[in-house]
Parts: sequence; structure tokens; C-alpha cells
Amino acid sequence: MVVGAGLIGLEMVEALKVRGVQVTVVELLDWVLPALVDKELGLLVGAYLCGEGITVRTSEKVLRFEGDEHGAVARVITSKAEIPADLVLLSIGVRPNVELAQKAGLKIGTTGAIQVNEFLQTSDPNIYAGGDCVENVHRMSGKKVYTPMGSAANKHGRIIADHIMGDANAFPGVLGTAVCKVLGWNVGRTGLSEREAKTLGYDAESIICSGDDRSHFYPGVGRLIIKLVAEKEAGRLLGAQIVGPGDVAKRVEIMVSALTLGTTVRELASFDLAYAPPFSSAMDAIITAANVMQNKMKGLGKSISPLIVKERLDRGDDFVFLDVRSPQEYEAVRIDHPNVVLVPLGKLRQDAGKLPMDKEIIAFCAISLRGYEAQRILEGKGFSNVKFMEGGIAAWPFEKVMNS
Amino acid sequence: MVVGAGLIGLEMVEALKVRGVQVTVVELLDWVLPALVDKELGLLVGAYLCGEGITVRTSEKVLRFEGDEHGAVARVITSKAEIPADLVLLSIGVRPNVELAQKAGLKIGTTGAIQVNEFLQTSDPNIYAGGDCVENVHRMSGKKVYTPMGSAANKHGRIIADHIMGDANAFPGVLGTAVCKVLGWNVGRTGLSEREAKTLGYDAESIICSGDDRSHFYPGVGRLIIKLVAEKEAGRLLGAQIVGPGDVAKRVEIMVSALTLGTTVRELASFDLAYAPPFSSAMDAIITAANVMQNKMKGLGKSISPLIVKERLDRGDDFVFLDVRSPQEYEAVRIDHPNVVLVPLGKLRQDAGKLPMDKEIIAFCAISLRGYEAQRILEGKGFSNVKFMEGGIAAWPFEKVMNS
Repeated sequence: MVVGAGLIGLEMVEALKVRGVQVTVVELLDWVLPALVDKELGLLVGAYLCGEGITVRTSEKVLRFEGDEHGAVARVITSKAEIPADLVLLSIGVRPNVELAQKAGLKIGTTGAIQVNEFLQTSDPNIYAGGDCVENVHRMSGKKVYTPMGSAANKHGRIIADHIMGDANAFPGVLGTAVCKVLGWNVGRTGLSEREAKTLGYDAESIICSGDDRSHFYPGVGRLIIKLVAEKEAGRLLGAQIVGPGDVAKRVEIMVSALTLGTTVRELASFDLAYAPPFSSAMDAIITAANVMQNKMKGLGKSISPLIVKERLDRGDDFVFLDVRSPQEYEAVRIDHPNVVLVPLGKLRQDAGKLPMDKEIIAFCAISLRGYEAQRILEGKGFSNVKFMEGGIAAWPFEKVMNS
Repeated sequence: MVVGAGLIGLEMVEALKVRGVQVTVVELLDWVLPALVDKELGLLVGAYLCGEGITVRTSEKVLRFEGDEHGAVARVITSKAEIPADLVLLSIGVRPNVELAQKAGLKIGTTGAIQVNEFLQTSDPNIYAGGDCVENVHRMSGKKVYTPMGSAANKHGRIIADHIMGDANAFPGVLGTAVCKVLGWNVGRTGLSEREAKTLGYDAESIICSGDDRSHFYPGVGRLIIKLVAEKEAGRLLGAQIVGPGDVAKRVEIMVSALTLGTTVRELASFDLAYAPPFSSAMDAIITAANVMQNKMKGLGKSISPLIVKERLDRGDDFVFLDVRSPQEYEAVRIDHPNVVLVPLGKLRQDAGKLPMDKEIIAFCAISLRGYEAQRILEGKGFSNVKFMEGGIAAWPFEKVMNS
């Protein structure tokens, strides 16, 4: 059992799983990697792990361990169950070791880590501190954060050496960037999550967009599910989260660069990114995501998150959940709910009359490109209450019927 | 035989080679991918292809073909040789098809492609043109360029549709970005090459820096050889070229983002890139390259390109070519020349006295990290004419003695 589904926890899940160990991961919060990604993407990662044979238990608190007669752990008692376990690994967070700094009388910041200025000087300017024991400034919020990462630690070393040698090279802070590999999926994020942006008072807009990491015909093509967060009026990008089997890290780095330099959604859409079939689509998935966000901001795209759709299905809302994929795609994978109606996009213009004009329609497809097109077509036909579900089935973390 | 070692030519070389075809590529200019990369990196790609069994013939002009009695090609006569060939593929450049535009009386630009404004309107504002038949503006130089790429073509389509629908969304141009895969190597570039930057009148500085694409201990780690170009005083980045078996495309995208937004070398070094061992080093190779460039600009790092070193060896210059690797590394791969002296870095402080203080010393190692350290150590010991060779043996495209 791994307790805590953060970065370290999930890296350990992978390490144990590939050695043939049966793994249960227990997370106190409602989805895996809760500090990294918002709920929509966290649920997707959780669903992927379940599909790989990992037992994922979220919203569950570990209360105590019970041992056997030899003093070894035998079971874990949680808020919901009693789970047998031969080995328990705790990965429940990181705290800075500030003991030495405290003994030296140095100031500890509000995050619990050592307070330093932009040159990594502590409250005693003759004492520098860097690495996982210090706090950083978040480049988006300007606030102090505790984000222990090897990448920042390495930069700290250089800043400190430069300053000692008389080169006042300020450390501008971090973006809370993180990336990890969990079995066959990659998860990355940078900047602010939607939750963080809203907590900080931003009028934040978000979209979820699914795409491919390279040309659809190229061997090894992998899916990406991208969430972008931006300021509603100005369009300035605030953050991004990306999950899936595709090349997540590359798009995270593009977003790191974009956020560092204060880019807007529109600017991102114009980046002259490097296209060749082994590496990307002609229109890279991150550019498509920026375009989908532009469509939403302009009011062309009217969209709804898969989470909200699920809540509304669960409470019995009466709307048409319009699947516009082909019958073959529907046979292979489908969302099983009475609200679902199948009208392939190619037939939508001729069959639109069969859909009720007085009801809300939420269209979707595999990734919701056709879902968006369905929204536009139906609006053209006079329907006034049509949306598409962001990210399509690729971003649907809930039960699906699969025939494979 | 493939005639022309550009993007298309080398993609065809790969396609033929993996099908077991014996391939010769003939290029008029002095190195492969001459429009993409400067000579230092082009020679490396050529050396890699030779190692893979491709016959690479550069600085060679195809004069004519000769056929057999059945009318099939039998041999190619070049400026240097008569080469038997069963099939000849010409990939000698791309010209825009502007016939229709000319017939319509539209203006053709100085590049030979259709002239358009930032909304992709031709000289007749009611006629739009986009894709490989139009010229683009280069975002660094502001000049018109002909860079036919699917990535720009896709963006053009959206710009045109937006403009028709009343949304004046200007297309800001391209960076001349390109990426390709050639067998086990990747090649990418964006912005200005050193040659282009100097032709445009920039006071350009460049460095070559070798590094790894992920943590050195992680399976599948691949080498990257990076060339950065920047303005000498302001430090503004002008371009990047990257080659090697490692993940080139990701670093190209970082550079695309950085160039689009007018970043300096110092800013690049502070990017909070996404670190985890499967994806990068804690200090990503592109950040190390930025730091090496900073060292050079500050005068801390005194470096020399492998091309210049080779020229000087060839003309018999008297300098110490100081290999500071371990004896084991030297046994495995070495540059065979009387000027080479082996002093492992760990012994350099104690053995420095054996080196001549009145001679120029050019230090190197596998990637020239230790080469740089050697320069600094020897300067500390009073040596006044010490440099390191940029990129180390990884960036040496010339003959090496290998024992494997």
C-alpha cells in the first residue's frame, strides 16, 4: 500500500507495479496528484491507473496500521475499510528541514521554509541557503511558495555562486512546474491551476482539449488531454495541466516559456512550433488548445466540463447528450446513459429535425472537435441551447462501455 | 541515389535505408541540411549518417544521368565521380506554384511566392492566399522569406477564415522553425543561424554545447548538441540549432517560445522547466547551454569551435590540445593527433607544471564541461592562453580512433 498519491507516491506505484507487486494507493483528497492537477485531470489519471490494475482509493483517510505477531504490518485501517497489506509506504508530503537555520537564528518564512531574498541570502546576508530547505517566489502570483524541486535547487546554486563572486543575478522564482511519468502516462503542470487562479482572485477561464502528440498516422501517436487556464478579458495565460500517454513534457515546456514571458492565448496560437510527423501535428495540440480557448472566449464555442455533465446526469437533468461519432466508434466505446442520442456528424444536417429544439443539447465525440462542429451546425439550424462537452470521451473519467 | 540533402532528401534517405536499400546522398553545398544548420552541426549529422552506412557526398555537383539500353538510369555523373545508381531521387528544393496567381494578375513577392499582407490578403484584397504558395515574414529579421511549412499553412487557414468573418487577427510570421528525424538522430532549428544573423548585421555570439536529454542514469538517455546564437551586448537570443539522438524537438519548442517573446540568454537560464529523470536533467541541457553562453559573454569561458581547432591542427599550428578525460575514456575514443596531451581533470592541479606556460592550450573532454573547468584551473595557476573546445568530442565531426 502506498499512502499519498502525490508525485513520490505515484512514482513508487510505478516502481512497485513493474516489479509485479499488487499495489493499492490511498489518497486523503478526492483525486490523485491533487497538488498538481485539477479534479478533471486527476480523475483521468486515477481511471488510467485503475485500468492498469492499481487499486486507487481516494477521499479516504488512513487511521492506523495493525501488525502481526512478528511486529510486521498486516493491515491498514482507513476511514472506509480494513485493507490487508504486506508493506506500507508513506508518501504524504515534504517538509523542509530548517533545524540548522533555526539554531542559527535565521528567519523562517510563512511557508515553513527558510526565508531568502532574490540572491538566496537568508536574514543574515552572510549566510546563503538554497534547495529544498528554502521558499521560492511564484512568478505568477508573486507569493512565497514551498515547491521543493531539483531544477530550482540547481539554479539556486548558480545564483549563490554568482552573488558571492559579485554578480548580482536575481533568481526570478518558479512557476510550480512539475512533470512525472506514471506507467504509460505522463502528467505535467505549470503556472496556476484553475482552483489556484480563482483563489488568487483572477477572473479565470479554462478549457479542456484533447489531441494527439504527433501526426495521427505516425507510429506511437499518443493522446494528450490539456487544460489551459487564462484571464478572461486580457487572455493572458495563467497555467496549464496536461495528462495522457502522449509527449506531455514538451507541451509543458512550451507553457513554461509562455507563462514566464506573459503570453496571451492568441500569441500562443501563433507560435511557429516545430512540425514534422514524428513530433507533432501540423497544428500542434497546444495550439489547438489555444484556439479552442479563443473560440470559448469569443463566444463561438459554448462548452461544458465533463465533471458538470456527470453531475447533471447523476441528478437526472433532462438534456440530450448527443454523441456525434460514427456507429463504429459508438460500438467500440460508449457512455451508457438514457440521455445519450447517437447522430453521426455527417448526418447531423439532415437529421437535426429529429432533435428537440426546446431541450438543451450537449454534443460530444472522441475529442470534441466534431462535438464543437455539431454545436455550430445546430446553432445554424436555429437551436439556441447547444453546448459541447470539453475534451470528448478522451476526457471522460467515468464509466464507459467498451467492446474490444 | 538521393540528390539534395535537405529535409525531404534526408527523410527519403531514412525511408530507403530502413528498407535495406544502399543509399548515396549527393549535396552541392559543403554539409547536409545546409539551409537548416550551420556547418558545425551539419558535419555532425553527415558523420552520423556515414556511421549508419549511408554514403554522404558533399560539395559535389550532379552534372547528368546516364541510362542503360532500356532507358533506365544506370549512373550519375557528378563533378567528382561517376556513380552507379538504380534509382535517382531529386530533392533539390521547393518552388511555390504561383501560376494561377500570376494569371489572376496578383503580385508576386521578391521571394518568388505570392505576396500577402498580415491577413493573408493578396494584392487583390478579395483574394486570399495561404500555405506553400505564399511568402511569410520572418519574426526575427522582419524580412520576407519563403519557408513552406504545414504548420504555417494550417495557421494561415484560420487567419483567413477569421478575417473573412470580421476578426482581424494578424499573422505575425514565422521563425523558420524546422525539425526532422533522420534514422536515430533528430535535427531541429529555429530563428536565425549564425550565418544568417551575421548577414543581417547582428553582432552575433554563438556557442556549441553538448548535453543529455534526460538524467544520465535514465534508460534511453540521448545526447544533444546545441548551438545557440545571441546578440553580443544585449544577450537577446537570435536562434538555435540542435542535433543528436536525444529529444531535440522539446528544446526547439522552448527556443521557439523564447524567440517569439524576445528573451535574453539570462532569462532563458531561469526558465522553471519541468524536471523529472525520464524527461530532463535537473538542469536542462538548454539551460546549461544558456549558462555556457553567459560564461562566454562574461569572459569567464574562453572557447573555440571544433571547426577552428581542426583548421589549426591541419595547418600545423603549435598548441597543446589537452584531453582532460579519464584514461578509460581516452582508450575508448580519442582524437589522434601529435598535439593531443592527456591529463585527466582530477590530476590537472598537480600536473599543471608539466604543461608549457608559453604555449596556447585548448582543453576538451567528452562534452567540454571538464574542458571548461580545465581552462579555469589553469588560469588560476597563472596560465594566460587557455581555451576550451566547445561541445567536446561529442561535437567533433572529424575522424576519431574508436576501440569498442
